[in-house]
Amino acid sequence: MLTVGTEWLIEASGCDAGRLRDAEELRAVFARVVAELGLRVVGEQVWHKFPGEGGVTGLALLTESHLACHTYPEFGVATFNLYCCRERAAWPWDERLREMLGARAVSVRCVRREPPASAPPPFESSPQFTLHEGEA
Amino acid sequence: MLTVGTEWLIEASGCDAGRLRDAEELRAVFARVVAELGLRVVGEQVWHKFPGEGGVTGLALLTESHLACHTYPEFGVATFNLYCCRERAAWPWDERLREMLGARAVSVRCVRREPPASAPPPFESSPQFTLHEGEA
Repeated sequence: MLTVGTEWLIEASGCDAGRLRDAEELRAVFARVVAELGLRVVGEQVWHKFPGEGGVTGLALLTESHLACHTYPEFGVATFNLYCCRERAAWPWDERLREMLGARAVSVRCVRREPPASAPPPFESSPQFTLHEGEA
Repeated sequence: MLTVGTEWLIEASGCDAGRLRDAEELRAVFARVVAELGLRVVGEQVWHKFPGEGGVTGLALLTESHLACHTYPEFGVATFNLYCCRERAAWPWDERLREMLGARAVSVRCVRREPPASAPPPFESSPQFTLHEGEA
């Protein structure tokens, strides 16, 4: 089956709420993922700090696809997505998020992005199929 | 179990390659998702067209989380991620991507973002726990 990318879905619990409200702390996680996996950021990253006690959202467009994070300081939770359209080594999310965000538990899921088989094109636009039919 | 968001992972096959190379066509998909689900975009969307016959990547930061797409014209494939931290109705991805990108097959997966249970905080930083212990 065709695979066009691999996506890692990461959830971290028990994180330090202060760090989850600080965009600089999350930028540092992005910078380390990018450096250690040899990824390349395209253009400007987008960061948003929600007001007051709210969390942070960050998005980075990569030549290899994208990296995203959302934080929920009220729950001590951060989530990340890393979508790579080329093969990459797994990043040590558990170890890094314990160190950088004070996480106490980290789950990592790996999902293959596999498009469904599509129906053949319509008869009239499929000369090879027509030829095959004529031969049968 | 705590759920901090719902993510839809969408893969569309058999799409029109020309439309997958045209950022305006993909922007139109984003605009329709946003309008029809009542989402709100924060700041500027990030779009990138890879050179030559390459595809398009787009990212939009939402108050409800994020929307992303990547296209692979060489395979007729587009992938989307919609991450919502609030409950939303499902969007008719199959119907819309057939209409807007010429897709012939669309798969939609829905993933709950559920952080793992974390260990309780250390004894010394948990006064409630200390009190409970004293009462026992």
